Amino acid sequence: MIFSAVSHLQTPAELYSINKESVCVRIKTAKNDVLQVTIIHGDPYVWEQDSWQSSEKSMSLAGSDDLHDYWTVTLQLPHSRLRYGFILTSTDESVVYTERGFYQEKPKHVSPYFCLPYLHENEIFSPPSWVKDTVWYQIFPERFSNGDPSINPDNVLPWGSEEPQVDSFFGGDLQGVINHLDHLSDLGINGIYFTPIFKAFSNHKYDTIDYMQIDPQFGDEQTLIKLVQECHKRGIRVMLDAVFNHSGYYFEPFQDVLKNGEDSRYRDWFHPHAYPLDPHAQKPNYETFAFVGMMPKLNTANPEVKDYLLQVARYWIETFDIDGWRLDVANEVDHDFWRDFRRTVKETKEDVYILGEIWHQSTPWLVGDQFDAVMNYPLTDAIQDFVLREETVESFTQSITRHLFSYPQPVNQVQFNLLDSHDTARVLTESNGNKNHVMLQYLMLFSFPGSPCIYYGDEIGMAGDNDPGCRACMIWDQNKQDTELFTFVKDLIQWRKELPTMGTYETIQFHESGVDDVLLYSTYSNDEVLLIAINRSQTAQSIVLPESFMDYTLIDHISGETLDKQTALEISKEHFRLVKKHLS
Amino acid sequence: MIFSAVSHLQTPAELYSINKESVCVRIKTAKNDVLQVTIIHGDPYVWEQDSWQSSEKSMSLAGSDDLHDYWTVTLQLPHSRLRYGFILTSTDESVVYTERGFYQEKPKHVSPYFCLPYLHENEIFSPPSWVKDTVWYQIFPERFSNGDPSINPDNVLPWGSEEPQVDSFFGGDLQGVINHLDHLSDLGINGIYFTPIFKAFSNHKYDTIDYMQIDPQFGDEQTLIKLVQECHKRGIRVMLDAVFNHSGYYFEPFQDVLKNGEDSRYRDWFHPHAYPLDPHAQKPNYETFAFVGMMPKLNTANPEVKDYLLQVARYWIETFDIDGWRLDVANEVDHDFWRDFRRTVKETKEDVYILGEIWHQSTPWLVGDQFDAVMNYPLTDAIQDFVLREETVESFTQSITRHLFSYPQPVNQVQFNLLDSHDTARVLTESNGNKNHVMLQYLMLFSFPGSPCIYYGDEIGMAGDNDPGCRACMIWDQNKQDTELFTFVKDLIQWRKELPTMGTYETIQFHESGVDDVLLYSTYSNDEVLLIAINRSQTAQSIVLPESFMDYTLIDHISGETLDKQTALEISKEHFRLVKKHLS
Repeated sequence: MIFSAVSHLQTPAELYSINKESVCVRIKTAKNDVLQVTIIHGDPYVWEQDSWQSSEKSMSLAGSDDLHDYWTVTLQLPHSRLRYGFILTSTDESVVYTERGFYQEKPKHVSPYFCLPYLHENEIFSPPSWVKDTVWYQIFPERFSNGDPSINPDNVLPWGSEEPQVDSFFGGDLQGVINHLDHLSDLGINGIYFTPIFKAFSNHKYDTIDYMQIDPQFGDEQTLIKLVQECHKRGIRVMLDAVFNHSGYYFEPFQDVLKNGEDSRYRDWFHPHAYPLDPHAQKPNYETFAFVGMMPKLNTANPEVKDYLLQVARYWIETFDIDGWRLDVANEVDHDFWRDFRRTVKETKEDVYILGEIWHQSTPWLVGDQFDAVMNYPLTDAIQDFVLREETVESFTQSITRHLFSYPQPVNQVQFNLLDSHDTARVLTESNGNKNHVMLQYLMLFSFPGSPCIYYGDEIGMAGDNDPGCRACMIWDQNKQDTELFTFVKDLIQWRKELPTMGTYETIQFHESGVDDVLLYSTYSNDEVLLIAINRSQTAQSIVLPESFMDYTLIDHISGETLDKQTALEISKEHFRLVKKHLS
Repeated sequence: MIFSAVSHLQTPAELYSINKESVCVRIKTAKNDVLQVTIIHGDPYVWEQDSWQSSEKSMSLAGSDDLHDYWTVTLQLPHSRLRYGFILTSTDESVVYTERGFYQEKPKHVSPYFCLPYLHENEIFSPPSWVKDTVWYQIFPERFSNGDPSINPDNVLPWGSEEPQVDSFFGGDLQGVINHLDHLSDLGINGIYFTPIFKAFSNHKYDTIDYMQIDPQFGDEQTLIKLVQECHKRGIRVMLDAVFNHSGYYFEPFQDVLKNGEDSRYRDWFHPHAYPLDPHAQKPNYETFAFVGMMPKLNTANPEVKDYLLQVARYWIETFDIDGWRLDVANEVDHDFWRDFRRTVKETKEDVYILGEIWHQSTPWLVGDQFDAVMNYPLTDAIQDFVLREETVESFTQSITRHLFSYPQPVNQVQFNLLDSHDTARVLTESNGNKNHVMLQYLMLFSFPGSPCIYYGDEIGMAGDNDPGCRACMIWDQNKQDTELFTFVKDLIQWRKELPTMGTYETIQFHESGVDDVLLYSTYSNDEVLLIAINRSQTAQSIVLPESFMDYTLIDHISGETLDKQTALEISKEHFRLVKKHLS
């Protein structure tokens, strides 16, 4: 046995609660090294005749990546406490693994065993229940629709009249969104994520001037109230974007420090290193986002700043009844601030979704006391590496398995999954205009755990390179919209609503397709299994069905056709198959 | 290379800050598998010509256990941010290890690298600076000295007249401690840890009746004020013990729930499952410590309870100027409570030491926002396993190395190290009365990182088995005190004060002694190395000096004798050698 590869960490990825009475435990072993894992478990205080009382339960091999096998088990805790260890069996030996290392025999005393001292109700990860059933639509307000020309900013350009530049304005606004809610309802989405709408200098509004005011170019309080009400009537939830890591250059407190330097009463709102502040230096003499002098870093450890920003967090929920906060550059703000943020938000409205913008591994923010989820860019990369960049099936399944097992399942179920955003090239452009490949990527996005998001315009075939290209004006001329793509995305949303195997299922399993270009996986609900086959190649492919599907009566989800006891499956070029099997 | 054993976790054990400008990074590889590790590091926002700018620095092999090698490096962060990866070189290959796995070449883009987004001042682990120079003395107040017979409890027994029983009272009190401060000053300790002194029912006082009152059998407010003042005059700090996990049975709010059941205004102070409460059931119908009906678990998530307990935390600091809080059953209280506790305590008096009672792996409480340290029982076990239980030298060095590398170095330096306590048998008894073995254990305790603690009476040779045996009355008759042991412990304390190699050094290194029964290790200060040899066996042993000591001029610390260019070292039976080498 490769002992040095055995690992169980008491982090949320490997020990997490599902509710007050049950926890899930995971353990990693070297790939193909261990045949069986059994967990030894018990309450630390249950003893009989000087001997600790424990039980055993077999663990399941739930996934593998290139280096490790992942084992998992769910345990009931009648008294909220747990001590546990693992019996690992390979072909030639059986050992017991504990917090203090390996033993030949089960330790009789409780002390070497791993310990979950007490499962507290306030430490159970509890994201809003609506998120896992939500399909998001991301709107960049300046570019979705100009519904009220009377509030156009200066130098506004005619809608869609040219390619967007870094500093163009086209006059998109909240009334424009209200005008087009039918489009969104028709598509079927039930959540909108708006990039910032607070008063700011730029067209993207990530450089806040006033955290308590809607940007006048977008509308006023009444428009937002109406927008949220209209959305809620249609069952659509609304998420706003906030930038608490830094303010904009024209934020009044920062202007005050620029002007008054050391004498400013706001100097501790930021992180000045010297006076006067020099915003134009290559490396400004105060802390900033990156080295951008126009984006001074806020001192979120200053109680005054914290109070102000938490007031902001409350204000938009209380006044406008929003349902989510997306948090920009969330990883560069201190954890203490986010803990207070969560407390404030959840006290104001319990089921608000808190989403952090973090691109790298995010466990420290997803332990239950800060965010509900992060923007799942690693999933984006894995999907695109497979469909667009010739990465192998094996490499895809391994990287996704590693990714899924790096978070607890309740986190995976509410992750914010996306193929692109205002910060990347559009999926059609990334796919070199190959619409089939776009559809395959959407199918994958919609069939993985988490809540998927569509970037405005992608559903009608808009293209666009990295910022500013990806921020073009929404195309409303139906003759210029790709209706085939629209229908496909609409179908996907419908399937996700209808099929329990395409949303909040518990299990995903990868299968060997036997064909280099075909990814094959299945998802499980209580009474159905869905087999998904993705053929990225430019030729049709035939695969041998996995044994668990062979010789069963299957149903093709698209055609409705019954496939009777087949052994193989054909998949057209750059296409997919969805095949259902009833469990009975 | 054994890829499955390579591991870098972004937990405090493997990524921790030393101050605002520097962090320490550690990585684990399979034992004897990797020859060299180099860290690739840079600021995420420093790019030149579309290429991320990084540097490289070699890492040191800082220790090994039975399965892994531990590598470490300290990095300077000019802008509080860090992206990093590792180049691992074995005899036959060289690979790059990142958050996303292994690469053959250094990834050009920053995204696969590990990320420390921003090092916040309020997230730097910062224990009080005095702790690492502190030698503690633990007092169980009922059994140290009866200085004021006028406040004796009922049925008090004459001092030391019999072996203590679970329910005996001997009348020890705070005046008794004041009376004997000379003994402590003579010994040389500079911190006292008192087990609880709040009003309670039992002799151990872990069943609190009133968190705001000194138990009348121990004294009144004036006595404690005087005691703390007298201690501070002598440079002795004072730590009290608090039980916030559960109250005692006679705590008024619990009595109220017992009496009024569901109608009690205190019912949410606890965790009742049904009414009336049944404290005498084998498994009470409310949450308790273990299954002890007399110790009802407090609901520390209830804001009213939290406010009350935080007021307690403040009161004893503000009123009596105490220097530390030791927290009983600390692992079973929620993290949120401890975060607020730390905030409250540090706001009241910045350099209060916060010590949790946790017997198992304690990383989740030692990330900087909760405790400064825990009671280091795993060190106790390792020391006793070696000196008393025939565990091999190898097993000792491996388990200590694994233990030290499971915490950041700033935590190791303030851990509360002990050989015994009111919760264990006394060290002399555990050692079957072998005083030489006791001395070896003390030497080890004093030469490991952390602040050592002496349990009252151990220094004069008291014996005693597990509770109640270990809680006997302190022996004040000098004829019955072991003065040889007292002198030895006093010397140890003195050496610890004089020798920078015996306290807060940075590095400890284990050497092969070539002899089964001799443990050999060295500790480093800026200008001296101390070699420590521990011979547990009943015969004298001779060991070959490690190469770094061979042929140097060494000084025997005990005799003062110069050892000129020796190659071997003699160690008497059940004895030790301390040998110094100057670095120049």
